[in-house]
Amino acid sequence: MINATPPQTPHRVVIVGGGFGGLYAAKNLGRADVQVTLVDKRNFHLFQPLLYQVATGTLSPADIASPLRLVLRKNKNTEVLLDEVTDIDPAAQTLSLGSNKTLDYDTLVVATGVSHHYFGNDQWQDRAPGLKTVEDALEMRRQIYHAFEEAEKETDPKKRQEWLTFVIVGGGPTGVELAGAIGELAFHIVPEDFRHVDTTNARILLVEGMDRVLPPYPPELSAKAQTALTKLGVTVQTNTMVTEIADDAVTMRRGDETERVEAKTILWAAGVKASKMGRILAEKTGVELDRAGRVIVEADLSLAKHPNIFAIGDLAHFAHQGDRPLPGVAPVAVAQGEYVAKQIQEKMQGKTLGAFKYVDRGNLAVIGQNEAVVDLGFVRLDGFVAWLIWVFAHIYYLIEFDNKLIVMVQWGWNYITRGRGARLITGEADLLPLKVELQDSDRPKVTSDR
Amino acid sequence: MINATPPQTPHRVVIVGGGFGGLYAAKNLGRADVQVTLVDKRNFHLFQPLLYQVATGTLSPADIASPLRLVLRKNKNTEVLLDEVTDIDPAAQTLSLGSNKTLDYDTLVVATGVSHHYFGNDQWQDRAPGLKTVEDALEMRRQIYHAFEEAEKETDPKKRQEWLTFVIVGGGPTGVELAGAIGELAFHIVPEDFRHVDTTNARILLVEGMDRVLPPYPPELSAKAQTALTKLGVTVQTNTMVTEIADDAVTMRRGDETERVEAKTILWAAGVKASKMGRILAEKTGVELDRAGRVIVEADLSLAKHPNIFAIGDLAHFAHQGDRPLPGVAPVAVAQGEYVAKQIQEKMQGKTLGAFKYVDRGNLAVIGQNEAVVDLGFVRLDGFVAWLIWVFAHIYYLIEFDNKLIVMVQWGWNYITRGRGARLITGEADLLPLKVELQDSDRPKVTSDR
Repeated sequence: MINATPPQTPHRVVIVGGGFGGLYAAKNLGRADVQVTLVDKRNFHLFQPLLYQVATGTLSPADIASPLRLVLRKNKNTEVLLDEVTDIDPAAQTLSLGSNKTLDYDTLVVATGVSHHYFGNDQWQDRAPGLKTVEDALEMRRQIYHAFEEAEKETDPKKRQEWLTFVIVGGGPTGVELAGAIGELAFHIVPEDFRHVDTTNARILLVEGMDRVLPPYPPELSAKAQTALTKLGVTVQTNTMVTEIADDAVTMRRGDETERVEAKTILWAAGVKASKMGRILAEKTGVELDRAGRVIVEADLSLAKHPNIFAIGDLAHFAHQGDRPLPGVAPVAVAQGEYVAKQIQEKMQGKTLGAFKYVDRGNLAVIGQNEAVVDLGFVRLDGFVAWLIWVFAHIYYLIEFDNKLIVMVQWGWNYITRGRGARLITGEADLLPLKVELQDSDRPKVTSDR
Repeated sequence: MINATPPQTPHRVVIVGGGFGGLYAAKNLGRADVQVTLVDKRNFHLFQPLLYQVATGTLSPADIASPLRLVLRKNKNTEVLLDEVTDIDPAAQTLSLGSNKTLDYDTLVVATGVSHHYFGNDQWQDRAPGLKTVEDALEMRRQIYHAFEEAEKETDPKKRQEWLTFVIVGGGPTGVELAGAIGELAFHIVPEDFRHVDTTNARILLVEGMDRVLPPYPPELSAKAQTALTKLGVTVQTNTMVTEIADDAVTMRRGDETERVEAKTILWAAGVKASKMGRILAEKTGVELDRAGRVIVEADLSLAKHPNIFAIGDLAHFAHQGDRPLPGVAPVAVAQGEYVAKQIQEKMQGKTLGAFKYVDRGNLAVIGQNEAVVDLGFVRLDGFVAWLIWVFAHIYYLIEFDNKLIVMVQWGWNYITRGRGARLITGEADLLPLKVELQDSDRPKVTSDR
């Protein structure tokens, strides 16, 4: 039950996290008779399904990011707080914030998502960046384009090939899309830009531990994706485990065989673990976590014995539908955000919704221009039609109209020219070119004294 | 005279710097019977006149940046080298590079521009960032939007006002455009986004040492710009020198009066000095430098006694036309790049062009939506017509067609909605929110071991 509050004090809903789950919960409470506070560490919602396009230089971060204040500005019952939740006291119904303030709630919605998981090898993190934040994507972009530049300058053929070798660890949608995009770059987009190196000699290796790429999809689509990747020039290695990531090499094992691949660019798309709010919730509410640290939720997405605390989106482990928990994808988070917003309003009227039920409208992954795989449940597609569906689904779900417009223009232009406008090497300027004495203006700013 | 080379070896032209001067020199040598190498530390040309729009959240870096390889890909006689020139040997006609390689030239064009100048107060650099690079612009953007966020959270009225105080040092075009853009933000664009702070209480101070803003422009336009800024809500303080920049305050002197302004955001648009290639050229060729370190060039932009070395753009001090040296603006650099490209080709045929002559087509500065000042020589304009001229001049000069398209769409959208889509607070995530324990995924990457 949600605590009774005197009628003059509005019911306080605190939502932690402005991803798909949190944002859609907030949007759907905009006209409700509640007071909403959305807390996020960042000032924008990030459209993560297109983050790989930032990492490969097609889009700019702002094209797929929407300032939370802007999206929610019309909701006068809603405020956005740029802060981080560091603790929770379920008895007092308060949250501790990074700014040392506290925040009271009547209902709490936790939607803090997941971060990379290196399966106990956290030392790989610096060598093989993952793809969850804008900063991650810009770091990947920097490494990818930097590798081509170094290959252009390198005269030793062995070292040149190391710069032209890209290993993507993990064959889920992100890994497949990254491998496809890098393949397009190396084989179709940049070859004419270089004078000394032939970028079509690039070796792009997609490594997957299971027996096929896109393991959650139907086997038929996995096979089609693998065929399309191979046709593009990507080497797909399934049933292969990465056992070591060193400075310039990846060691992997396939059955009894061990192979060491020398590569300067190693990208991580393999695993995720729940954000630390999962652990905090477990400690303070006694809720159970799964092996990835996700919160095991009740049928209405609330926490056991804490009906006024909900966990949604990637953070939630929902096992009340089908054989496996619901996947950590945007459509599930959106549906859960909408459900929770409705459930909060029902409960305030003494009613309650039935269990959450996810209607799966399908799965998508793009391999390259004119090439995608789509599983709509009733039909499975690949090739150009699948690619078109992928394009329009993504534009449809982008949050703001100007984002839709800019992304459409950018994609249209790239479609015609096969160009990549956002291929900037920025940030951490001291890394490129290597061993260069910097001018003052390029030196990274001192960050500790402000 | 340019050294005679055997006919089978093409004449080697090395251009250092891919700004307006260097890029236009390279573009205009694309069909010449020479071998061109363009050396730059960065892999893109930056359209600096619009950098303030990145700093204030209207455009993304990629919107105003063009990959040098992409711009020059069709010029088969041209290669782009991502490297930094660290030294020159004019006798041997070689350049030393940061990568420890050397590069031979027959003709050298140096166009490395300028960086910030803190007039002997380099310690101010970390407190008051300048605006020359993409990283500078993102740092300004971070500070500006972060200040609004902190003001929203701050409950102490005095501290809140400090977060709402923005001091822009320097009343040239960059300072005027920054002050105008921040004024639009605070007074017209973000007020509805916040629930606790009234951003229309912001104090935006534009400080200029001379007796008027836009000192190089006709006094009539300076007066109009000042009126427009004041109308927008910006406080313009002329005849005022900044004497100290401390952590949270600026001290300034106007005649005998000293004032201390408490402000969390201090932006530097005051002075530039030549990049260090100026000093290297002076040491190795004996060429004279002016007080700002710029290279004093001959009437044909070559260095005295070194007819095969040219300095162009902001790095050059050209005093052969008018009472004052030519200003460091993009149109001068473009004209000089084109002139040098032509001169190189003339000289190879034993001919020579007359002295470089700059045809001034006018000056522009924008204050805000529908408000700019334009001096076209034969006519001076302000208001909406001036603003339209400013818009089209900038779109016309953007290097690539997709940049023109994206910037047009973005401006059109902003014009209708008064929105700012690129208002992301990114990078250096540990600074925001202050005192927050970070999740792993947001921690800045370790940069030293790669």
